[in-house]
Amino acid sequence: MSVGGQDGHSGVKDTPPIRVFSGTAHPALARAIVEHLGMETGKLTVRYFSDGEIHARFEESVRGADVYVVQPTCPPVDDHLVELMVCLDALRRASVHRLTAVIPYFGYARQEKKDLPREPITAKLVADLIVKAGANRLMVMDLHAGAIQGFFNIPVDHLTAEHVLAAHIAARKIADMVVVSPDEGRVKQARRIAGALKAPLAVVYRAEPECGSCHGLKLAGDVMNRAPIIVEDMVTSGQSVLDACDVLLEAGCLPSIRIVCTHAVLAGDAAGRLAARPEIAEVVVTDTVPHDHASLGPKFSVLSVANVFGEAIRRANRNLSISSLFG
Amino acid sequence: MSVGGQDGHSGVKDTPPIRVFSGTAHPALARAIVEHLGMETGKLTVRYFSDGEIHARFEESVRGADVYVVQPTCPPVDDHLVELMVCLDALRRASVHRLTAVIPYFGYARQEKKDLPREPITAKLVADLIVKAGANRLMVMDLHAGAIQGFFNIPVDHLTAEHVLAAHIAARKIADMVVVSPDEGRVKQARRIAGALKAPLAVVYRAEPECGSCHGLKLAGDVMNRAPIIVEDMVTSGQSVLDACDVLLEAGCLPSIRIVCTHAVLAGDAAGRLAARPEIAEVVVTDTVPHDHASLGPKFSVLSVANVFGEAIRRANRNLSISSLFG
Amino acid sequence: MSVGGQDGHSGVKDTPPIRVFSGTAHPALARAIVEHLGMETGKLTVRYFSDGEIHARFEESVRGADVYVVQPTCPPVDDHLVELMVCLDALRRASVHRLTAVIPYFGYARQEKKDLPREPITAKLVADLIVKAGANRLMVMDLHAGAIQGFFNIPVDHLTAEHVLAAHIAARKIADMVVVSPDEGRVKQARRIAGALKAPLAVVYRAEPECGSCHGLKLAGDVMNRAPIIVEDMVTSGQSVLDACDVLLEAGCLPSIRIVCTHAVLAGDAAGRLAARPEIAEVVVTDTVPHDHASLGPKFSVLSVANVFGEAIRRANRNLSISSLFG
Amino acid sequence: MSVGGQDGHSGVKDTPPIRVFSGTAHPALARAIVEHLGMETGKLTVRYFSDGEIHARFEESVRGADVYVVQPTCPPVDDHLVELMVCLDALRRASVHRLTAVIPYFGYARQEKKDLPREPITAKLVADLIVKAGANRLMVMDLHAGAIQGFFNIPVDHLTAEHVLAAHIAARKIADMVVVSPDEGRVKQARRIAGALKAPLAVVYRAEPECGSCHGLKLAGDVMNRAPIIVEDMVTSGQSVLDACDVLLEAGCLPSIRIVCTHAVLAGDAAGRLAARPEIAEVVVTDTVPHDHASLGPKFSVLSVANVFGEAIRRANRNLSISSLFG
Amino acid sequence: MSVGGQDGHSGVKDTPPIRVFSGTAHPALARAIVEHLGMETGKLTVRYFSDGEIHARFEESVRGADVYVVQPTCPPVDDHLVELMVCLDALRRASVHRLTAVIPYFGYARQEKKDLPREPITAKLVADLIVKAGANRLMVMDLHAGAIQGFFNIPVDHLTAEHVLAAHIAARKIADMVVVSPDEGRVKQARRIAGALKAPLAVVYRAEPECGSCHGLKLAGDVMNRAPIIVEDMVTSGQSVLDACDVLLEAGCLPSIRIVCTHAVLAGDAAGRLAARPEIAEVVVTDTVPHDHASLGPKFSVLSVANVFGEAIRRANRNLSISSLFG
Amino acid sequence: MSVGGQDGHSGVKDTPPIRVFSGTAHPALARAIVEHLGMETGKLTVRYFSDGEIHARFEESVRGADVYVVQPTCPPVDDHLVELMVCLDALRRASVHRLTAVIPYFGYARQEKKDLPREPITAKLVADLIVKAGANRLMVMDLHAGAIQGFFNIPVDHLTAEHVLAAHIAARKIADMVVVSPDEGRVKQARRIAGALKAPLAVVYRAEPECGSCHGLKLAGDVMNRAPIIVEDMVTSGQSVLDACDVLLEAGCLPSIRIVCTHAVLAGDAAGRLAARPEIAEVVVTDTVPHDHASLGPKFSVLSVANVFGEAIRRANRNLSISSLFG
Repeated sequence: MSVGGQDGHSGVKDTPPIRVFSGTAHPALARAIVEHLGMETGKLTVRYFSDGEIHARFEESVRGADVYVVQPTCPPVDDHLVELMVCLDALRRASVHRLTAVIPYFGYARQEKKDLPREPITAKLVADLIVKAGANRLMVMDLHAGAIQGFFNIPVDHLTAEHVLAAHIAARKIADMVVVSPDEGRVKQARRIAGALKAPLAVVYRAEPECGSCHGLKLAGDVMNRAPIIVEDMVTSGQSVLDACDVLLEAGCLPSIRIVCTHAVLAGDAAGRLAARPEIAEVVVTDTVPHDHASLGPKFSVLSVANVFGEAIRRANRNLSISSLFG
Repeated sequence: MSVGGQDGHSGVKDTPPIRVFSGTAHPALARAIVEHLGMETGKLTVRYFSDGEIHARFEESVRGADVYVVQPTCPPVDDHLVELMVCLDALRRASVHRLTAVIPYFGYARQEKKDLPREPITAKLVADLIVKAGANRLMVMDLHAGAIQGFFNIPVDHLTAEHVLAAHIAARKIADMVVVSPDEGRVKQARRIAGALKAPLAVVYRAEPECGSCHGLKLAGDVMNRAPIIVEDMVTSGQSVLDACDVLLEAGCLPSIRIVCTHAVLAGDAAGRLAARPEIAEVVVTDTVPHDHASLGPKFSVLSVANVFGEAIRRANRNLSISSLFG
Repeated sequence: MSVGGQDGHSGVKDTPPIRVFSGTAHPALARAIVEHLGMETGKLTVRYFSDGEIHARFEESVRGADVYVVQPTCPPVDDHLVELMVCLDALRRASVHRLTAVIPYFGYARQEKKDLPREPITAKLVADLIVKAGANRLMVMDLHAGAIQGFFNIPVDHLTAEHVLAAHIAARKIADMVVVSPDEGRVKQARRIAGALKAPLAVVYRAEPECGSCHGLKLAGDVMNRAPIIVEDMVTSGQSVLDACDVLLEAGCLPSIRIVCTHAVLAGDAAGRLAARPEIAEVVVTDTVPHDHASLGPKFSVLSVANVFGEAIRRANRNLSISSLFG
Repeated sequence: MSVGGQDGHSGVKDTPPIRVFSGTAHPALARAIVEHLGMETGKLTVRYFSDGEIHARFEESVRGADVYVVQPTCPPVDDHLVELMVCLDALRRASVHRLTAVIPYFGYARQEKKDLPREPITAKLVADLIVKAGANRLMVMDLHAGAIQGFFNIPVDHLTAEHVLAAHIAARKIADMVVVSPDEGRVKQARRIAGALKAPLAVVYRAEPECGSCHGLKLAGDVMNRAPIIVEDMVTSGQSVLDACDVLLEAGCLPSIRIVCTHAVLAGDAAGRLAARPEIAEVVVTDTVPHDHASLGPKFSVLSVANVFGEAIRRANRNLSISSLFG
Repeated sequence: MSVGGQDGHSGVKDTPPIRVFSGTAHPALARAIVEHLGMETGKLTVRYFSDGEIHARFEESVRGADVYVVQPTCPPVDDHLVELMVCLDALRRASVHRLTAVIPYFGYARQEKKDLPREPITAKLVADLIVKAGANRLMVMDLHAGAIQGFFNIPVDHLTAEHVLAAHIAARKIADMVVVSPDEGRVKQARRIAGALKAPLAVVYRAEPECGSCHGLKLAGDVMNRAPIIVEDMVTSGQSVLDACDVLLEAGCLPSIRIVCTHAVLAGDAAGRLAARPEIAEVVVTDTVPHDHASLGPKFSVLSVANVFGEAIRRANRNLSISSLFG
Repeated sequence: MSVGGQDGHSGVKDTPPIRVFSGTAHPALARAIVEHLGMETGKLTVRYFSDGEIHARFEESVRGADVYVVQPTCPPVDDHLVELMVCLDALRRASVHRLTAVIPYFGYARQEKKDLPREPITAKLVADLIVKAGANRLMVMDLHAGAIQGFFNIPVDHLTAEHVLAAHIAARKIADMVVVSPDEGRVKQARRIAGALKAPLAVVYRAEPECGSCHGLKLAGDVMNRAPIIVEDMVTSGQSVLDACDVLLEAGCLPSIRIVCTHAVLAGDAAGRLAARPEIAEVVVTDTVPHDHASLGPKFSVLSVANVFGEAIRRANRNLSISSLFG
């Protein structure tokens, strides 16, 4: 259990034991995470009764342990959210040392502000609920909006899949790339990917509603005869990515578009719709939410973020810097 | 809007306006409640997105209003629970005068204590979450355990359907009834029904596991040649009621058993299994959870508790005693 | 300081030092607990001023210590409760590592729900107050109702005296025992004792008020020519136990009744009344509340739970499983 | 119900109904308070069980009412404190409009800071507990230290008996008075009384411990041939007042000392010890705590503060200024 | 005091009296607000002692009143923030009915997320502090980021100056306008202004750092021979607006640029720098922060938002819809 | 890292690493503190933007560290207070082990109670804010009023400079000293200094307003031909000290007055006014707030409390008694 000095200072030499448990949302990711740590997931039994109620029980002592519950709140989002909270409640009653909710994909993140009167701010509600259920700390990845971190007063380790995604594209050695933000909200993320790929940037944005051109969208930046890399944090229905493709093609891009995206929720037939477009060459996603790789088809590349989470847990446990992971 | 003096004192003459909104769990009940109040349900739009996320928006001003959200947390319990909290969050941000969650059926109520180490106490968790989401007050009916009221520090109006159920049976003018509690937890409720019906009481209880007789159940009290009225707070799979029927029949009861039950969750084929038993003459339930009356079949009588809730809301708004409703 | 691997995993090797303090309610129990741990109680001075106000001062540094305050809230219940909270307040201001209230007998436990409108739920109030005063964790024994655990969101170690009580009776090698629950609320506890003693079970229960027979009580189960073991969590006035004796004798039990009970509060002349009944052969209680053994008389056997608490404290401090104590 | 404009502005015309309840500590004061309001105390039943546990029940609806619970926390202080909190808990669960704890004498007020390490700050603890139990507002009189108001974040109406006490002395038309503070903590209060009586001031103070003279006390100010009026907020054992008398007599005061004091707790034989001193001509106290007037003897004058509390409640209910009462 | 039905429903007829107080940040705005309401500001004395500590005292009773404290947290931001909290603390201790912080300009709004590890989220901290100090509700204008609303769980009325600003420009009847967002964060606001003015939209955005062109900025949209209207929420140093001007001029816009901006904080010589640019024809700002109009010079037009706040307060008090103000 | 047994017990052998950071209020003190600990201050960058907003960033990992932020809230008090809270907010989000605010001088301490209606209790507000911002513990020195400790529920280490101040005076070997409390509030502190110096005590106190003599002040105790040592906790304008000097000189003291004072805030020209009085021989202060020693002039002696804080931090980190420091 030697801790290399190159990681930064180590807090106490004698760290509390790590226990990683998986809810039912994504056990494969949890198993890949603990593999990085050289251990196994803890024994947790979650049952859904005939009336839909969830019951959870931890089958091993967790006293004094540094506990991590891995549960992306992907669809069915409410079940996965309530299940996570039920697990947190059981653990806080069990004298754990520290209780970290590991939420690779944070559902309801897009409802982070009021656009109209008498709307909820559901991302804040969910943040409050998770803390109320007993979490001491949070580990998340590529939140839809950075201000969601401010919805919490507990420490939040905000990890990113950008390095994993960028490295995959770089390995493709594509000529004449252009990195594209498909709307105003992704510009910062796209710029960071562009920097890593040493590629120029273009931005699709929504013009005033009455402009009439395709989908009301316009393009800033030059994509002519370039191979676009569209950057997204999450793809649900896929419609906004498909709309951006239209804008790019109309502006003369090469018919070889790649999409890189952290959270591929892919509701309904989104995967099929993306695959059906001949101009889309590849859709690069991560495993923050579970996928049936077979049904995604050959255009999809699924990269694993398990090592990112595994290393973050190892460092958190030993009080080593996590931000230096993404230096 | 005359307030009769026989109700007890009225607080302020000028009460804030009532607004009743319905989530998607049981709009028919909400409509029946507001009919009692001579008004309509408020305009609330709830949508489920393709990835399962819920969005809610209240389409009319609720400033200064005395607001009630009607939502039983029946299956799908997690969706209905999260939807309720999303609605509460939107309302507390909208300057309402008072915010009451009306939860005719309170899901997760049976997980109100730890039977084993490292279990959650989910009923308490749900109580904490509802308060965190913004409820100032609660209106519930026939909670599975009275101590759940103590999980809240806000006022809880605990209504009962016992009078409605007892009156229905009394009108049947059945000879030689015996009221039966199908387990140790229902004795108090069954005794109150028995008192109202002036009938004797019998208790089915679980003997020590190794006793071997039918289902490990035994019977206290005399049911020979009597028509049993089994009293339950909720029927989910129906198994424990069917087991109690076996015990009663074995003890010589008349083959004309009636079941009275507030919350008929009836998961899976529970309704069919109850209807299939020839000795069961009638299953009397209420509408705290929605039912498809047609599919329940002719043995089921569904009584409405809408007036109970409607009158409780009227009295709460005017600061009149609610307990006197059940005097 | 070797920690045996058979206890389960140990958290950190270097555990914070244990300090056990005793309030004035039951110093003898605290001394017996620390004897198990091979240490002494900490130096705490509690004074009651002439006007009844309590003052507490801890005479030794507790920085960074794992502190336990032993105080059953037995009569005078309010003084003992306030004294406990005063001690907790002093400790939380003194930079302790962790602060556990050890409450062998938890007063006000029977007021855990509202039976009538406008009543308090005093067990919940007391739970809130203890947490507000600074407790991080709780250690209790044989709570009157399991849902009281849900009144807390902090970890609660719920210990039991059942093994100690059952072992004592087993050693008596009594023939033809029957274990009796004297009311509906004790059936689960009685069944566990019965299992340990391999004896059948009987249940005394309250029939509908108008039945007229002795005390309105009835009996389920066969006690004819058997030696009853009545199981209670607490005996205060003793009346309900005496009533149960009447029912049992009327049903033909042997005139050699034993009572086993965790918390013998024994207000007024309860001890004398129990001793005066010739059919009561023995009253087996524990030392969760203090007793003057001499005045209890020869029929009383007082078993100590000090080792149960002492071992639980040792395991809590070293992050070993406590539930396995009662496996 | 005409509200005179001279009181300041009235908030809403239609104020919620007042309900005043009395705990068991001082029902006579509560009755005198409601007499001022032209109403009766509400129906509240408080019982102490044989094991000392308190049970409370409010026998009338309090929905929407502006509720006041009158309970000085005089000896037995812990019982009266817990009883107050039990009543508050019942009321907050009963949908009251506003809940004010009226605590004419606030016990534990002298423990408002730490003099030594590892002491509690019990006055703060009690403040926290009262708020946790459900109080929205507080009404108190002549707190031992002004900073105790800061222990609360809820509104505190801090009333004073100084006007009542000063008027009583003024009516005596005593020649050559000197107002005396018996220690450093009462100087401000004594100065206000002195101003009202147009009398000079003297201060008894504790010199450095090693000075050796009587009780280690010294006197600042001239009392020769003057009639001292000693001002205290509370008298418990009476010892510090008797010590001050010694210092004053030694300094040549007239042998006709008067003591004025808001809270006459008078533990043990304090009343007798004061009465036995021939130089003490009169002890003027109020009824913030209950007294048996007969046993106090003829030297004691007990003034009522019921009208002060009654008027404060009337004004609080109608949103009129309370500070102007003491202008 | 007739309340027109066209405003929406009125809550209670008998609303609590409004009291508006002004901190020292911007008394002129507060006076203009109360002029709309036909009343005067309340009597509040705020002093700064020689050591910089603030003291506040409210000179009139506020019991039962609907109280508004007007205080933009403009520079010196910390003094104005602490002063606001000191006022809130005094008011919550004074039995007000409802306490609304009216913060026309919300300082620290740009620190709403973490860009680097170990940074604060100061906008959230400030939100927490304001609530902790006692605010029940908030009234703000044109927040820098919508998610800041989610930092609060209390109701937030988010007003906008867009209608006032757009109407001013529309009255200028400028030919060939183009509305410009000077960075990615203002696109939504600019699009709404563009819609109101029936003008096209252009967006200045920050390209990847290494691009080298002017300031690293690029332009989307056609501004050739058009008169730009740059839209900002706040101007502090003015540098980003000046940079945008450079981009626009380089792209061939008319040398007649207008800037419209809600919060003109204008630190240092920002006003002078803007005025010195000959291509800037007008700077249109509001009075959410105080300005010395004389020193701003003739290019500045200062529009008042006092009526917007005054009307919002009137509607909030009468429970009328505020969102309909901005239909 | 040997821990001497003479310090009391050590908690855990393996303590978390100490990190001490300095805000901008008093970096010199922070450096002197860490020098005692044999370490350096942590890398923290605090910037004030042109509009006065503060930004803070910690440049090194603090995970699992025992973190201390040193920041007296001396003038400009609001900036230093907000800066402290901003730093605390950043740290609590960064997974520190424990977070202690070290506030050598606690501003707003004199506003610890309400003297008039509708005033704030600002010392309590500041206490609440500091806890809300994330502090787990506090380290302060010579608070103006002891009850301020009760404003917190977190542990507060209340250090004192009395030993440092008394030792300095004792080393002067002054004949015929008298220790003077310049008002009623400093008597306890002055008595402790007097005890340490084996000198008698005198008290200046404020007589009733109408007495007319110098400043309305009087003197208790004999100062004739003695060298006064005036004891203060803080000197701001210096007026009350100068007034006390007048009273002492009038009463015949030697014209060689010394002032000892923990917190020398010295607003305006206070230092010059004290120095200008020929009867003032020396002003002994500490470095809890920063001073420009040169400008203070030769009459001022500035003693360092850095070692007191440094040793307290060392002991807090190792769970050694701090009170024994002042034994």
